[in-house]
Amino acid sequence: MTVRYGMVGGGAGAFIGEVHRMAAALDGGYQLVAGAFSSNPSKSKVAGQELGLDPSRVYDSYQEMAESEYGLTEEDRIEVVSIVTPNHLHHAVARTFLKAGVHVICDKPLTTTVEDAEDLCDLAVKHSRLFAVTHSYTGYPIVKEARERVRGGELGEIRKVVVEYSQGWLSTLLEAEGHKQAEWRTDPDRAGISLALGDIGSHAHNLVRYVTGLEVQRLFADLGTVVDGRKLEDDATVLLELEGGVRGLLSASQISTGERNNLRLRIYGSNGGLDWSQEDPNRLRLIEADGSERVLHRAAGATSERARAHTRLPSGHPEGFIEAFANIYRNVARSLRSDGVAHPFADDFPTVQDGAHGVHFIHKALESHHQGGWVDASYAPPGV
Amino acid sequence: MTVRYGMVGGGAGAFIGEVHRMAAALDGGYQLVAGAFSSNPSKSKVAGQELGLDPSRVYDSYQEMAESEYGLTEEDRIEVVSIVTPNHLHHAVARTFLKAGVHVICDKPLTTTVEDAEDLCDLAVKHSRLFAVTHSYTGYPIVKEARERVRGGELGEIRKVVVEYSQGWLSTLLEAEGHKQAEWRTDPDRAGISLALGDIGSHAHNLVRYVTGLEVQRLFADLGTVVDGRKLEDDATVLLELEGGVRGLLSASQISTGERNNLRLRIYGSNGGLDWSQEDPNRLRLIEADGSERVLHRAAGATSERARAHTRLPSGHPEGFIEAFANIYRNVARSLRSDGVAHPFADDFPTVQDGAHGVHFIHKALESHHQGGWVDASYAPPGV
Amino acid sequence: MTVRYGMVGGGAGAFIGEVHRMAAALDGGYQLVAGAFSSNPSKSKVAGQELGLDPSRVYDSYQEMAESEYGLTEEDRIEVVSIVTPNHLHHAVARTFLKAGVHVICDKPLTTTVEDAEDLCDLAVKHSRLFAVTHSYTGYPIVKEARERVRGGELGEIRKVVVEYSQGWLSTLLEAEGHKQAEWRTDPDRAGISLALGDIGSHAHNLVRYVTGLEVQRLFADLGTVVDGRKLEDDATVLLELEGGVRGLLSASQISTGERNNLRLRIYGSNGGLDWSQEDPNRLRLIEADGSERVLHRAAGATSERARAHTRLPSGHPEGFIEAFANIYRNVARSLRSDGVAHPFADDFPTVQDGAHGVHFIHKALESHHQGGWVDASYAPPGV
Amino acid sequence: MTVRYGMVGGGAGAFIGEVHRMAAALDGGYQLVAGAFSSNPSKSKVAGQELGLDPSRVYDSYQEMAESEYGLTEEDRIEVVSIVTPNHLHHAVARTFLKAGVHVICDKPLTTTVEDAEDLCDLAVKHSRLFAVTHSYTGYPIVKEARERVRGGELGEIRKVVVEYSQGWLSTLLEAEGHKQAEWRTDPDRAGISLALGDIGSHAHNLVRYVTGLEVQRLFADLGTVVDGRKLEDDATVLLELEGGVRGLLSASQISTGERNNLRLRIYGSNGGLDWSQEDPNRLRLIEADGSERVLHRAAGATSERARAHTRLPSGHPEGFIEAFANIYRNVARSLRSDGVAHPFADDFPTVQDGAHGVHFIHKALESHHQGGWVDASYAPPGV
Repeated sequence: MTVRYGMVGGGAGAFIGEVHRMAAALDGGYQLVAGAFSSNPSKSKVAGQELGLDPSRVYDSYQEMAESEYGLTEEDRIEVVSIVTPNHLHHAVARTFLKAGVHVICDKPLTTTVEDAEDLCDLAVKHSRLFAVTHSYTGYPIVKEARERVRGGELGEIRKVVVEYSQGWLSTLLEAEGHKQAEWRTDPDRAGISLALGDIGSHAHNLVRYVTGLEVQRLFADLGTVVDGRKLEDDATVLLELEGGVRGLLSASQISTGERNNLRLRIYGSNGGLDWSQEDPNRLRLIEADGSERVLHRAAGATSERARAHTRLPSGHPEGFIEAFANIYRNVARSLRSDGVAHPFADDFPTVQDGAHGVHFIHKALESHHQGGWVDASYAPPGV
Repeated sequence: MTVRYGMVGGGAGAFIGEVHRMAAALDGGYQLVAGAFSSNPSKSKVAGQELGLDPSRVYDSYQEMAESEYGLTEEDRIEVVSIVTPNHLHHAVARTFLKAGVHVICDKPLTTTVEDAEDLCDLAVKHSRLFAVTHSYTGYPIVKEARERVRGGELGEIRKVVVEYSQGWLSTLLEAEGHKQAEWRTDPDRAGISLALGDIGSHAHNLVRYVTGLEVQRLFADLGTVVDGRKLEDDATVLLELEGGVRGLLSASQISTGERNNLRLRIYGSNGGLDWSQEDPNRLRLIEADGSERVLHRAAGATSERARAHTRLPSGHPEGFIEAFANIYRNVARSLRSDGVAHPFADDFPTVQDGAHGVHFIHKALESHHQGGWVDASYAPPGV
Repeated sequence: MTVRYGMVGGGAGAFIGEVHRMAAALDGGYQLVAGAFSSNPSKSKVAGQELGLDPSRVYDSYQEMAESEYGLTEEDRIEVVSIVTPNHLHHAVARTFLKAGVHVICDKPLTTTVEDAEDLCDLAVKHSRLFAVTHSYTGYPIVKEARERVRGGELGEIRKVVVEYSQGWLSTLLEAEGHKQAEWRTDPDRAGISLALGDIGSHAHNLVRYVTGLEVQRLFADLGTVVDGRKLEDDATVLLELEGGVRGLLSASQISTGERNNLRLRIYGSNGGLDWSQEDPNRLRLIEADGSERVLHRAAGATSERARAHTRLPSGHPEGFIEAFANIYRNVARSLRSDGVAHPFADDFPTVQDGAHGVHFIHKALESHHQGGWVDASYAPPGV
Repeated sequence: MTVRYGMVGGGAGAFIGEVHRMAAALDGGYQLVAGAFSSNPSKSKVAGQELGLDPSRVYDSYQEMAESEYGLTEEDRIEVVSIVTPNHLHHAVARTFLKAGVHVICDKPLTTTVEDAEDLCDLAVKHSRLFAVTHSYTGYPIVKEARERVRGGELGEIRKVVVEYSQGWLSTLLEAEGHKQAEWRTDPDRAGISLALGDIGSHAHNLVRYVTGLEVQRLFADLGTVVDGRKLEDDATVLLELEGGVRGLLSASQISTGERNNLRLRIYGSNGGLDWSQEDPNRLRLIEADGSERVLHRAAGATSERARAHTRLPSGHPEGFIEAFANIYRNVARSLRSDGVAHPFADDFPTVQDGAHGVHFIHKALESHHQGGWVDASYAPPGV
């Protein structure tokens, strides 16, 4: 009954591959049965062995994997592929597996160009495949509670959105010190045209869209490369005009020395405000117009069906990043499997269109920065 | 390569069984292959089916399970049993499986009497089986960091320990309203002689022992039953004298209305203090003698080998209760399996002797309360 | 129109004298016109000069001060005396000035014996003088909000009270290092029979009484002297039985290394809980039964008349310790002066009877500790 | 020995006048002896009476006050005038008193035009008068500690500054509801060309300059008027380029519903970061490069001479807004009076030049907004 999945990327030293595997394993809904874990075949073999895979299904390349799996019986071959490679490979890998009829769970940013992103949108439709993009932060139950309350009008008319994503891990030229993660993320050939916006700004952008339902209409971006010798921006501020003229401010920084993974969303409406911080992810602060606050905790005062459907533990038992991530995996599994139980929120995962929105946003921010002015940023990806 | 395990208890509505299963699944180290999930055979069947088990290994009773599994080949039968029943069954179930050569992971409190606890200590030794008790809160990496620092002398000579565990979920007579968890936990026949101390005080007691390495020598307990109609204490204060005359204060309450799962440990030494709260589990506050503080975060400034060995994610990516719980499971698996990699902290899980300490503590607290005075509480369980 | 006051004690190096002077000055309601600032006449002179007093009203002793001031015209002589000496002098000084018809504002603990405390109660009645004791922490507006809500029934029936006062400043033998404050506070001849309970436990006790309106009926105390060479207890735990059988826990420690001035009150009722910390004094956390919280801020969501009457600034502009202290001074002034405006809460300051309650509490705690058992602690001071 | 001062503005309903009076009174260094408290003579009379002033020194207008006071003897007349009127009067009032030889303490923003600000700079020099502008937030001791550490190089090379000032009190059209404060602050005739930047953004700007010592070189501003019917901006985002190319982000909002008085400063350097929030003003968070934190508290771990010189209470005894404000008043008094004690930081108060910087900043932000692009914002006011 478990979903059979394979993985592309995610060999030794790749933090995010391990996260995907834990997220898939948590609820017992997936079984990892195949993989091309590295562009280096021997590294792929080692990874497959450590993961206890059948050696015949540990592949030298994703192309080989797609072809060989396609040759297996329907009962055996993978149903889903998890793509956890550097950004520049997402498109080719996803394209290959979509054409082989495999559903896709792909890390973000979806692709390095808008054209590639739209190509994947088209292919997902054409082949009727599910395509999830792991904007994992929207997987937190209390973020879902925020969404329900904001969209339900609890804050009144939305007026201002402030989203910040601050990290400090790139405050030195880590890419020159042999740090694998830093190497590819700061390399235009593998990361694409953006560092901070691609790596973390796209999460912030997706979080705003998810909670408010508002799309960016116009933007002004100011990008900076603070660390000498770096090739892409490591600090970015983007002023947003959201639908309805709502004012927005998005900042993404990877040179905010000492910051760990500080993603914070605040929304102000005519009746009140809301504040969520990813490092304290079980808690949602609602700010009343009189200056008092109401603090909800996951499973304590978070009363929406949507939040409860994505919660595993009683209140006071902290859930974390893996559980949020696992909510994407579980919803994909529930969309694939009818287990006889209604799962009204099974479609609650970021889609290929959400991914395309992110890629488009990054490109518009770069455009604004280069032009030095506001640009139109409205967008509708294909295949919605 | 995965460890085959079975489960006793943990059917529908049993929160803790699901936690054990997620903890076992997280790292891909276990496979659930058998179970007796309920004393009601048909409920056990349903649970087994939902979990995708081979129906032939879903049993009507734990006795049948032990016997049948024993009849399977060594390659097939369960290696570990997870016991997640109400307290009064722990002893009989554990005894049965130990005698069948199965390693045990048992929920707390270990047993309802000291004699039973010691019997399990003896049996574990006699049959050379691993026996873990899921005092899960010691599984948090930053708690392990605290242990290293406290035992390494960073606070100087330890002088005072304050541990508090406050919940509010039993602030009404929930057991009269058909709440399953409340029913058995407040029922002397199934829970044993204690409610608050057994259910949560034993965690607090274990946490103190784990971090400080100090045993309780004497204690004075004052127990109260605050909610009318309840049969066991729902609020307890225990004054401790730890080894070396260290002053201690342990409180456990389940009628602190609104408190979620507020387990907090503070330790004061001659050089500084330390403060940890379970609801903010990635953070450790070190208090300097000058009144300034140093705040460590899991994977950020928590530098001990022990902490890092139990961490899965980069700093700023919150880990939670399940990950802490999974550290017990993973260490048991690492103790059972030699995967060629050295795991120097594989023995870092609460043992049957730790469980016996907890049961003894509960009984001594009751004794003190009934006598109205301090009692000797020193103890050495068999089989260390 | 300002109140003329004199001060006994409060010369160089005496922190609390300066606090009283700032509290008196803040609202422009007092004028310091006389003083006997030290038992050393030349030190008194210096202090008086620095404070800009008329030298003829800077006295060598409090006796001289009382006598001389009494000889002045009614328009000139002091109306109020502030007593900020070490504890052992409070009684004699207060007695002297009461008999001279002067109102008294006295630091805590009121006296070193219950007999002396009751003597002052009697004298205040006999001479119809106001007598305030500076249990300053009840001066915070948000504590007053807590009082209104607790007494108004918002938490339902009160069930449990936890009050803690932790400091670390006496975690070394500071009294042996020439530290003036430490010297007298740890000296039985000047401090009385208690250190931690007298110095800070009495504040905690008063805070409980102020907010809940419940008196201590029985108590069990365990006192410890943690720092070698100290003559009085520096760490104390007191179990309380409040009126109606409400369970209480009071701890006072001055050896909790690194703690600054951590006074915290929590109250749990049948409907919810409440949490206040003195180091974050503008904020009150209300805990709902469902585990969510409501956070009030002074002047933001704190809606009681009593809280607002003791607030000076808009919300978000922090008020602190001096402002709380000044609320005692201002209320005494308002009780003395009719300025044509109704001040319905002008009597909201700790009285001589409150002070007597504190002294009685300290003595009962010592008695319990020496007996090793619970003692009756009910009490009604004279003159209520 | 106290400084005689008069006040212009600050009658009934004027919050800030009362703050000035409490700040002046706190340390006993000032005596209020004269005032023109309202443009309405009868209101001025009432205010003067309530404050206990000699009726002959309660004036109908500031012009009359300046003239009459000038006619008094040097021992009697005011030495300092506190100007707490709406913004548009600051210039004329300050000008008048400077010419009369009176030192000035003026609320912010200094004036409504740059020309007026520079005129005051010139006059202060010409008449050798002290001129303080009450950018009160730099009066907090821990802000001074931050300054010492930042300027002393503890964070390494400064790279990024984020300052935010969010309030919610103008999230409705309060000026249409008879709210006096809202009326003049939102009225271009009385407030000048800016609302949010003038009222609070100027504080944020001054805080950055005070702590870092860096001036704004270029800026890009986006202003918004969120509440319908309002005449000036109530929400502003300003991108800064500070000296040395340091990236900065300043936001000021008065429509962030529910926010009280949320002024927060973060600074990131090559070695670490720093975080301070005005609503928690005794605490300074230093962020280490490894992601751990060090939290200083006023008088606890805040070790600079500058911080200690502006602290009144032991650690753990919260100081607040009034104490910060009083540090400006006390330093002005110490600059005026030689009391025989060295006060090395007596010049630590915001000057007329600081005020001019603020006015210039506001005007440049408006210019940028209207041009839709970056503008040069470098500036040197006269008379430094």
